[in-house]
Amino acid sequence: MATLLSGLTQILDIHHDKIPPSTITVAGWVRTRRGSKKFSFVELNDGTCAKSLQIVVDANLKNYSDIEKLTTGCSIQVQGNLVLSPGKGQKYELHAQAVSLFGLADPETYPLQKKEMSLEYLREVAHLRMRTSTYASIFRIRSRVSYAIHQFFTERAFCYVHTPILTTADGEGAGESFKVTNFDFAKVPKNKNGETDFTQDFFAEPAMLCVTGQLEGELLTMGLNKVYTFGPTFRAENSNTSRHLAEFWMIEPEVAFANLEDNMQLAQDLIRFVVADVLHNCADDLDVCIQKHQINTREYLNMAIDNPFIKVSYSEAIDILQKANKTFEYPVYWGCDLKSEHERYLCEEHFKSPTIVYNYPEELKAFYMYLNDDGKTVRAMDVLMPGIGEVVGGSQREDREDVLIQRMKAKSIDTDHMDWYVSLRRFGNVPHAGFGLGLERLIMWITGAGNIRDVIPFPRTPGNCKF
Amino acid sequence: MATLLSGLTQILDIHHDKIPPSTITVAGWVRTRRGSKKFSFVELNDGTCAKSLQIVVDANLKNYSDIEKLTTGCSIQVQGNLVLSPGKGQKYELHAQAVSLFGLADPETYPLQKKEMSLEYLREVAHLRMRTSTYASIFRIRSRVSYAIHQFFTERAFCYVHTPILTTADGEGAGESFKVTNFDFAKVPKNKNGETDFTQDFFAEPAMLCVTGQLEGELLTMGLNKVYTFGPTFRAENSNTSRHLAEFWMIEPEVAFANLEDNMQLAQDLIRFVVADVLHNCADDLDVCIQKHQINTREYLNMAIDNPFIKVSYSEAIDILQKANKTFEYPVYWGCDLKSEHERYLCEEHFKSPTIVYNYPEELKAFYMYLNDDGKTVRAMDVLMPGIGEVVGGSQREDREDVLIQRMKAKSIDTDHMDWYVSLRRFGNVPHAGFGLGLERLIMWITGAGNIRDVIPFPRTPGNCKF
Repeated sequence: MATLLSGLTQILDIHHDKIPPSTITVAGWVRTRRGSKKFSFVELNDGTCAKSLQIVVDANLKNYSDIEKLTTGCSIQVQGNLVLSPGKGQKYELHAQAVSLFGLADPETYPLQKKEMSLEYLREVAHLRMRTSTYASIFRIRSRVSYAIHQFFTERAFCYVHTPILTTADGEGAGESFKVTNFDFAKVPKNKNGETDFTQDFFAEPAMLCVTGQLEGELLTMGLNKVYTFGPTFRAENSNTSRHLAEFWMIEPEVAFANLEDNMQLAQDLIRFVVADVLHNCADDLDVCIQKHQINTREYLNMAIDNPFIKVSYSEAIDILQKANKTFEYPVYWGCDLKSEHERYLCEEHFKSPTIVYNYPEELKAFYMYLNDDGKTVRAMDVLMPGIGEVVGGSQREDREDVLIQRMKAKSIDTDHMDWYVSLRRFGNVPHAGFGLGLERLIMWITGAGNIRDVIPFPRTPGNCKF
Repeated sequence: MATLLSGLTQILDIHHDKIPPSTITVAGWVRTRRGSKKFSFVELNDGTCAKSLQIVVDANLKNYSDIEKLTTGCSIQVQGNLVLSPGKGQKYELHAQAVSLFGLADPETYPLQKKEMSLEYLREVAHLRMRTSTYASIFRIRSRVSYAIHQFFTERAFCYVHTPILTTADGEGAGESFKVTNFDFAKVPKNKNGETDFTQDFFAEPAMLCVTGQLEGELLTMGLNKVYTFGPTFRAENSNTSRHLAEFWMIEPEVAFANLEDNMQLAQDLIRFVVADVLHNCADDLDVCIQKHQINTREYLNMAIDNPFIKVSYSEAIDILQKANKTFEYPVYWGCDLKSEHERYLCEEHFKSPTIVYNYPEELKAFYMYLNDDGKTVRAMDVLMPGIGEVVGGSQREDREDVLIQRMKAKSIDTDHMDWYVSLRRFGNVPHAGFGLGLERLIMWITGAGNIRDVIPFPRTPGNCKF
C-alpha cells in the first residue's frame, strides 16, 4: 500500500511560492467549473488556504466527459504542470495531464450550492458548512489564534495546565451549571429523607460542568508560578442571543507575584501578540471574512497594535459617561453595571482605542477579587475593544484570608466546602492575578462575525446539540 | 501602583545563563532552610523550573530573626547579589541584601513537609501537591508536551479544531457516557407515555459528554484538509485502576486523502517530534521524574527516536505470540484481543522497538474502520511503546457508504440518527484516516509515573471529583 499523502502538493504551498513550476499532483474539492469549447476551468480548493488553484483541462483529455460532469463539491485528484498563469487574479495555474474522481456531489441533493447562501441556512447544515470559504477561513483563523495564544504563553514560561471540566465547586458562585450524572432518569435514587441520593451517583456527590478553571488555576500557580488554561467552559443559561453559547472556550492565565497593573500589561501584550500574528499569517482568510461580513476589522486590529491601551478607573469612566453628549438606554450612575452601549461608547467614541476599565464597585464583582483600601472597589479589570466591547475580564485576587472569608460569607458561599481554595491564603500565600479571555468573542472581533454561532464549528445553544 | 512582576528575575533564566552576575530580585517558595552560626542557606524555588536557587543570608541582616523562622512552603522575596557559587551542585547563589515575607506555612498545619511523602498521601492533598518537585516537574513536562503537539501540527498546516464536548452522538457506539442535564432530579418530567420528557431538558433531547471528537473531526477534515483536536474526553466507566480516568485529554488528528500507511507515518512522526522536544527542553524535569519513579524512561525515549517503528500485521503478531517461548495469562489465537501482556511482549521483548500493529479483525474494532478486501480485517492500527504498551489507536476510515451502513447495522447503530456522518460518503467523498493519542498515557510513558492519577492535576475517578 503506497502513501497517498506523500505524493500530494498542498495548494497553500503553491500560493506561498514554495513550489517551483513543475509536474505536481493536487487533490481537493471543486468550487466551480466552467467550460469553453476547448477547455474546462476548475477552481480547486484543498482546504489548506483561502485561495483555490485554477485547473485547466484540455478537451482532448481522455476522460474529458467526466470532467464536464464535475459540479461544486466533487472531490478530485489532478496531476499536471504547474505554470505561471496568463490570467488575472492568480499567479499559477495547473495544466491537467490526468484527473481522477474521488466522489461526486449530486447537485440535486448536495445542500451546498455555488450560489451565495445565507449564514442562517448554513447553520442548519453545520456538518457541511466548513466546506464554504467563509467558514473555512473563520476556522483557520480560530486555529491560528489558538496557536498564537499557546506560543505567547510558552515563550513567557507559562505552564499550560488542564483544570478539571467536571467539578463539585461552583467557581463564580453564580453561573447556572449543567449537572453531570450517571443516574437513570426513570429511577433517580432517594435517601431516607426523600432527597436525591447522590452517594449512588458516579462521583458520590453532585457534579457539574465547570464555569471557569480559575480557582484550580490559582492552586496550580502556587507551584508553577505562571499558568494558563485553554479549555471548554459551560453555562446552562437559557439565553438565545447572538452572543451566548452553552459551550465555549476560555483562556485563563494566572500569575503569582502579580498585581492588577501586571495583569493589565499581560492582557494587552497577549491581545497585541495575537493580533500581530493574525495580520501576518491570516491575510487571505481575513480578506474572505471582511468581504463576507462587510466590516473592515483590519481597522480595529491595527488600532490594537498601534498604541498602548487606555487605562481608566471605573469612577473616571462613569464621569465620562455622565458628561457624554449622548442618551443611553440604561442610566449611568456610580455603582451601575457597564452595559455594552457604555463599553462601546468608551472605547469606540470617547477614547477611540482599546480601553481597560479597572477598580469596579465591589458589589458588581465576584468574591475572589482584591478589595481596595477604599472598601468600596475591587481590583477588577475589563478590557474593551472597539468593534465588540469586553473581551477580557480579570482581577488581582484577594489574598488576605480574613477579607476573603468575609466576602464569601457576604455572597453566601460555603467557605467549608471551599476550604481547599481559602487555604491557599494560609500556606505560602503570595499576591497573584489573572484573567479570562473568551476565545469566541476574540474570534468574532477579529473576523467581524456578528453571531457567536458562526465562530465555533458545532455551536451548543438551548434546544440545539446536533452533530 | 507599580508592577511587581517587571522587577522579578525568573530562576529559570538564571539556570539558563541568561542573567549575568548582578543585583537582582527573586520571589518564590522555600524548599528548605538550614542555618549555621553566621549564615542561613535557603533553597528557593519559584516554580519556573526544577532547580532551586541557593540564597545565602548573612546573620547580620536586620530582620535575620524572621529568616530563622522560615520553614518549607513559606513565600518570600529576596533582593541580592547573584554570584558564582563556590559550592557544589550549583553554578550561582544569591547573597541576600533584603528579604521580605509574603506568607508563612505553619509546620503544625501545613500538609507538605520536607520529608519524603508518598504519592498516595499527595493525591489526598491534590490542591497542594503541585508545590512538590515531582508534581511540578510532571506538570511542566505535560505543558511542554502539549505545546510540542501543537507545534508539530501547526508546522504541518493542520487546523486545530474544537469538536463539541456536549453531544447527542455516541461516537464509539459503545462507551459509557455521562449524561448532561438541567433537570431537577427531584422532579424529572415525564411525557404521556410515562417516559422521561427530554423535550423539557436544556437541549430538548438526551445530551452527554463526548467520548471522542473523531466523527466531528471527519466532518471538519472535508473542509480543512488536515485537522486535529486537543480536548477533554469522558468515560463513565466504573473502573478504579491505575490506568483509567473518567476525564482525560485526547489528541485526534484526521487527514483527508490519507490511507493507513500515511496514518502510521503521521503517528510515528508525532511521537518522535514530541520525544525529541522533551529530551531537549525538559532535561531537569525528566531527571526529577526518573529519580522519583526509579524508571529510566530516557532509555525508552531514545529507543523511539533512534530507529523507525516496526510495522507488523495483526496476523503476523499472532503468529509471533503463538511461537513465543512464554506463557501468557490470556490465550492467543487469531481473533483474540491483544492484552497488555501481549502488546508489551511484542514491543519490549520481541522487537525491542516501538511497534505498530495493523489490520485487526473486523469484530474487534469500531464500525468506522475501513474493511479490507479479505472481508475479515479492517485498516486499524495500534502504536505500542516499550514501557507502557498502546498509546495510539487509529484507522483509515470506511469511506464507502454501502459498506459503512452495513457495518453500522451489524453493530446496531442508528444510521438515521447518524445520517450527518454517513452523508460525508455521499458528498465529495475522499479517503481519510486518523488516530487518537491519549495525553495521559503519553505523559505516564515519558515520566515513568505508574498511576494515571499522577499525571493530571485533578484526577476524576469513581467517587472522586474533589477540588
